[in-house]
Amino acid sequence: MLIDRRSRVCELINKMNLRGAIFCSPSSIRYLSGYVAPVEIGPNPLEAGPPILLINKDGETGIIVSEFEEQPARSSSKVDHVSTYSCYNIHDVSMKAIDNLTGVLLDLMKRLKIDEGALGIEAEHFPTALLWRLQENLRALSWRDVSRNLETLRAVKDEDEIQLIRHVCEVTSWGQITARQLVSEGVSEIEIYSLVKAKIEEKAGARTPLLADMISGERTWEVSGHPSTRRLRRGDLVICDLVPRIDGYWGDSCSTISVGGASEEHRRLHRIVMTALQKGIESVRPGVSAMELDKIVRGEIRRHGYDYPHHTGHGLGVTYHEEPRIYPSSNTQLKPGMVLALEPGVYINGIGGIRLEVIILVTEDGGEVLTKYSKEL
Amino acid sequence: MLIDRRSRVCELINKMNLRGAIFCSPSSIRYLSGYVAPVEIGPNPLEAGPPILLINKDGETGIIVSEFEEQPARSSSKVDHVSTYSCYNIHDVSMKAIDNLTGVLLDLMKRLKIDEGALGIEAEHFPTALLWRLQENLRALSWRDVSRNLETLRAVKDEDEIQLIRHVCEVTSWGQITARQLVSEGVSEIEIYSLVKAKIEEKAGARTPLLADMISGERTWEVSGHPSTRRLRRGDLVICDLVPRIDGYWGDSCSTISVGGASEEHRRLHRIVMTALQKGIESVRPGVSAMELDKIVRGEIRRHGYDYPHHTGHGLGVTYHEEPRIYPSSNTQLKPGMVLALEPGVYINGIGGIRLEVIILVTEDGGEVLTKYSKEL
Repeated sequence: MLIDRRSRVCELINKMNLRGAIFCSPSSIRYLSGYVAPVEIGPNPLEAGPPILLINKDGETGIIVSEFEEQPARSSSKVDHVSTYSCYNIHDVSMKAIDNLTGVLLDLMKRLKIDEGALGIEAEHFPTALLWRLQENLRALSWRDVSRNLETLRAVKDEDEIQLIRHVCEVTSWGQITARQLVSEGVSEIEIYSLVKAKIEEKAGARTPLLADMISGERTWEVSGHPSTRRLRRGDLVICDLVPRIDGYWGDSCSTISVGGASEEHRRLHRIVMTALQKGIESVRPGVSAMELDKIVRGEIRRHGYDYPHHTGHGLGVTYHEEPRIYPSSNTQLKPGMVLALEPGVYINGIGGIRLEVIILVTEDGGEVLTKYSKEL
Repeated sequence: MLIDRRSRVCELINKMNLRGAIFCSPSSIRYLSGYVAPVEIGPNPLEAGPPILLINKDGETGIIVSEFEEQPARSSSKVDHVSTYSCYNIHDVSMKAIDNLTGVLLDLMKRLKIDEGALGIEAEHFPTALLWRLQENLRALSWRDVSRNLETLRAVKDEDEIQLIRHVCEVTSWGQITARQLVSEGVSEIEIYSLVKAKIEEKAGARTPLLADMISGERTWEVSGHPSTRRLRRGDLVICDLVPRIDGYWGDSCSTISVGGASEEHRRLHRIVMTALQKGIESVRPGVSAMELDKIVRGEIRRHGYDYPHHTGHGLGVTYHEEPRIYPSSNTQLKPGMVLALEPGVYINGIGGIRLEVIILVTEDGGEVLTKYSKEL
């Protein structure tokens, strides 16, 4: 599986006439090595940069992490070489992590025979300081930006990826079930968010990055937003969009929950979104294009005189937004093994916002919904 | 206050003969603009890079964020110019966020008159792809890496920073109090971690990045580690090191808690660490050097035949680890307004690990402990 993915990257490398490539986004690292880089707290002030993955045109791979990540990187990454570099510690307080990393990187590039010729680089993530060091030392290298080149490769998932996505979708559903239990008058958005996150982490058995829209009342008209201290009031709607990452793979989901019983108007709008979502689910199958799918779902909303300002859906995997993107002008054709979110909504000033979202695996003859929880109001 | 910090950076810029500087780490962005960049979930796959702050030698400043961060950046950053760039949305699905960002960045550089001459850049954080775009367009520019130049400036805190650190220390203490209530036989490390995080978020009123060591039993011999699914057993020690970020400023703290009553040996070791910490706290005052402080604290541990493999402490602020670093060969002198963690420990294979940590503000004539919670076993 990992081997298949690396073969596809090697094909790309060879097609581009490169000697190899260097990746450093958490998504590419996960995709090509199996190592899940921690992202929960931003950059470590003691490290010289993100983990770095090297791959040459023959598929030989190596990863470099700081000494702080040595143990998890060694136990989880499946690569030919794991290297570490020293940061600040009581034996080396020079704060020259960048020099240490440069030395280790040069060694590994030599070992993989990618220290000359043309090299791909994930330049949107690669630190300038490190590039400068490489350029000082390897004057014969030329670079090609491959920041966006893996996305097409990633659209169709391998079997091991589908299993991981199934799992994160299960836990995501558990988060939605928990959120529904917590929604009640007087509770704040942040209280719901943090308890849902705790429940997700308990289920996942590990720290779990969680992107979430958690907005209520008039905030639902604004489509999205981080949880605030606003307390729920009777008659509110709550948009609860949960996007956790487990073992490097992202789930996604959205429900809209009413506080203390929905109004007739809210129920009418909810029925429209629900029908649009249902039509979308039924329309997923190989060969359908993204624009057709967008038209079916958005069309159902428009038929009632409404619309939503965002796409109808998107793929997910080692990122929470990738191909296939479901928007009005996309020619992308669905294929078996693709995984996508569908998320129609309506957002009306003065009345409320409603969005419903599920994750669907494209199968040989249709689609399988991977997220399972109530979409009722 | 922000003005004072920016004046100090301008002094640095002028001293280095630069026209201005570009920063893009979350810490520098917070320090110089007031804007708190979200870090909880890693890079956004739709953005072209991190937020970018520009400052010229006269102190004129601008910030650039993606359209997704426009609202929070406008409301919280205190700069002369706030610019945004378009990413993926239904009106622009070209996925050319990097081009959009480049255009906006070039405009702002021109406006601040930093589009020629020598410029400082936080190269350890700046994306290579963006540098390449700038170089294509501004051939007359030369660059100086200023990745590590703010750290010395940051060591002494301004009054507004001290207030923010007081607040995060209060919430950190609340997290410690919560952890102590949760520690009991049968509970897992991850359950304690995630409920503590939820309580911290509830208190903070917002999503709160949290670095934490949460290790128990034999894992305490390993000094540090992420929470696992290991369940606490009678006789275990639990090392609970909580490092949350609130409003862009980091707290820190560590307690060691026994499960179901500590053994005589654990109590003896705990008394040693407690005495070392106490001696450290009493020794903090302006003029004391980091190495003296290290010697006092570490010496107390060594007097009993033990030691710890890490530093005695470190400063904190917009990062969780910065000057003053308290280690055996550091000449750094404590000054009023510095904020530091002291964290002695003992870690003995087959017996257990104990670490205790407090945050101290260096005052005119001593030190004030900002974290308040039980350090008992």
